[in-house]
Amino acid sequence: MKDLAEYKKKIALIGAGSWGTALALVLADNGHQVNLWMRSKEQQAEINNRRTNHKYLPGISLSDNIRGFNALEEALEGTDTAIIAVPTKAIRETMRNIIKLINEPMTFVHVSKGIEPDSLKRISEMIEEEVPADLLKAVVVLSGPSHAEEVSLRHPTTVTVSSKDMAAAEKVQDLFMNQHFRVYTNPDLLGVEIGGALKNIIALAAGISDGLGYGDNAKAALITRGLAEISRLGTKMGANPLTFSGLAGIGDLIVTCTSVHSRNWKAGNMLGKGHKLDEVLESMGMVVEGVRTTKAAHQLAQKFEINMPITEALYHVLFNSINPKEAVDQLMQRLKKNEMEDLVDILSEQMEQK
Amino acid sequence: MKDLAEYKKKIALIGAGSWGTALALVLADNGHQVNLWMRSKEQQAEINNRRTNHKYLPGISLSDNIRGFNALEEALEGTDTAIIAVPTKAIRETMRNIIKLINEPMTFVHVSKGIEPDSLKRISEMIEEEVPADLLKAVVVLSGPSHAEEVSLRHPTTVTVSSKDMAAAEKVQDLFMNQHFRVYTNPDLLGVEIGGALKNIIALAAGISDGLGYGDNAKAALITRGLAEISRLGTKMGANPLTFSGLAGIGDLIVTCTSVHSRNWKAGNMLGKGHKLDEVLESMGMVVEGVRTTKAAHQLAQKFEINMPITEALYHVLFNSINPKEAVDQLMQRLKKNEMEDLVDILSEQMEQK
Repeated sequence: MKDLAEYKKKIALIGAGSWGTALALVLADNGHQVNLWMRSKEQQAEINNRRTNHKYLPGISLSDNIRGFNALEEALEGTDTAIIAVPTKAIRETMRNIIKLINEPMTFVHVSKGIEPDSLKRISEMIEEEVPADLLKAVVVLSGPSHAEEVSLRHPTTVTVSSKDMAAAEKVQDLFMNQHFRVYTNPDLLGVEIGGALKNIIALAAGISDGLGYGDNAKAALITRGLAEISRLGTKMGANPLTFSGLAGIGDLIVTCTSVHSRNWKAGNMLGKGHKLDEVLESMGMVVEGVRTTKAAHQLAQKFEINMPITEALYHVLFNSINPKEAVDQLMQRLKKNEMEDLVDILSEQMEQK
Repeated sequence: MKDLAEYKKKIALIGAGSWGTALALVLADNGHQVNLWMRSKEQQAEINNRRTNHKYLPGISLSDNIRGFNALEEALEGTDTAIIAVPTKAIRETMRNIIKLINEPMTFVHVSKGIEPDSLKRISEMIEEEVPADLLKAVVVLSGPSHAEEVSLRHPTTVTVSSKDMAAAEKVQDLFMNQHFRVYTNPDLLGVEIGGALKNIIALAAGISDGLGYGDNAKAALITRGLAEISRLGTKMGANPLTFSGLAGIGDLIVTCTSVHSRNWKAGNMLGKGHKLDEVLESMGMVVEGVRTTKAAHQLAQKFEINMPITEALYHVLFNSINPKEAVDQLMQRLKKNEMEDLVDILSEQMEQK
């Protein structure tokens, strides 16, 4: 391994799933040392000895700049920036474990996409709640259309970073930016987090439609209407409606709904083919964020009194055993006869906010 | 064949390509008699004798309500509505031929997607120029995310109709609307025509990116930025920006860029793999509307002083032999560092119009 002085910066990366590992590769390509933490000792040994992470990124070689850690304390040592790449439901526990081990304020960059049911908190809010102010430099989100598999192959990818502290977001932009991985800033933290989280709901619905054999015309209609309902809710919550026209909005929505890489799409696809939810989740072997997010979004729609027909339909499919075919058929027939009436509703809601 | 009295309405459908034939099936399903006109006598014989149109819709049986015609006069006889399903460059000649044969005003429904280079006319404008006022009842456009192959299989599909005369658009809505084929109205004729025409440019670019092996992340970024530039131009021309968030905007853009059925995507894909334009067009055997539309959009961008980087890049690939890889690489690196700056430019332009 190289001497530490040769590295630009040492960064902790918490969570060695496919996305965490792909982001470790980007940072390593940029000359940073990445302390990649994971729970499994076998995975750690594989990463350090064989330079692979075959379960999550099969066929990819990891650079020597990436070191696997099993002890959180060691992974955090000497870092002031941690990338948090764990599922939404593990965020609070992860942050509680981290703050026991640090004495200096850190920047936390979260790269997950979800909303906590019941509390209805976004991930940046959960991190702010768990980390005492004297240990918190900044919270930054990184989001956008970015399948881990393609990032690990250095295919061109564009993402957005956002934060309440845009100077911190710009530092994160500099850490990740390179020729293949383009990072843009957007000051609308709420919009970026809502866009990322809610697109998984539409991906589940798109997967169901494909699983039913309905084709690209139906899916395009679902994506179009899905963007409208995400935009409606997000704007009512205080997001900038333009964010939903950008990378963290329609960009991420398209990639998640139309790509064979997407877990949420795959889970929906199995539901559409007639498998039960339990069966689907078991067979996936990875977290399907959209399922919990559907529950949270259903609660958000009620709280903010927003009409979200796709979210509602999916909620009933997932949690009330409604038949997926009936749900999608009803959605397809449900648009107002004048498309503009729907769109004007959205604009009116947006204008009320401004 | 059935007696004429059993049919709801007799409709002329001019052009028996895949889209024209798929729309004939929808009308036939709704009980209308469709007089389907085509130039080729062999194709006419196949349609009337074998009830198939194998070149354009392989494997699909045509209903008895569809009758093939080779003489335009016969196809138009007894109709007051003609669906015009010919490529953009054949619109004027087709209309000139029709007006020689009719004495009563007709409604013309165009279902093609293009803009005329040099004149920069939309299809509805070309029809208005060619048809004398005393023979013109109304011009209606039908557009949206709708691959012909899927429509012919009765997969769920949603489209939008628009016209200066919304009562005429609603009549067309009633002609086509059924359980599988959902038709919505939108009063923004200009926006619906611009959205439909310009998405073919982005589909060519998306095909090039796929042909270069760049993956779904890159394509999602191109589609996102593509929608932004279409919206920028359309709004400056006077369209309602909301139209680009609807079926004829983002909906059609998604389906054309992500589906294996799309001709424009296929042509781009071949360009990305290193084939020359002439070669590509020859091998397609069908019209690739996006090529001419790129020329027209390049001229529109100059006329309206709108920044359209994807259109410009594609223009240089198609007409100035710029290397497709260089063009896409430049596009991927070209976004402003702050994504919002781009989006705010769009909003400012939109607001100036209102």
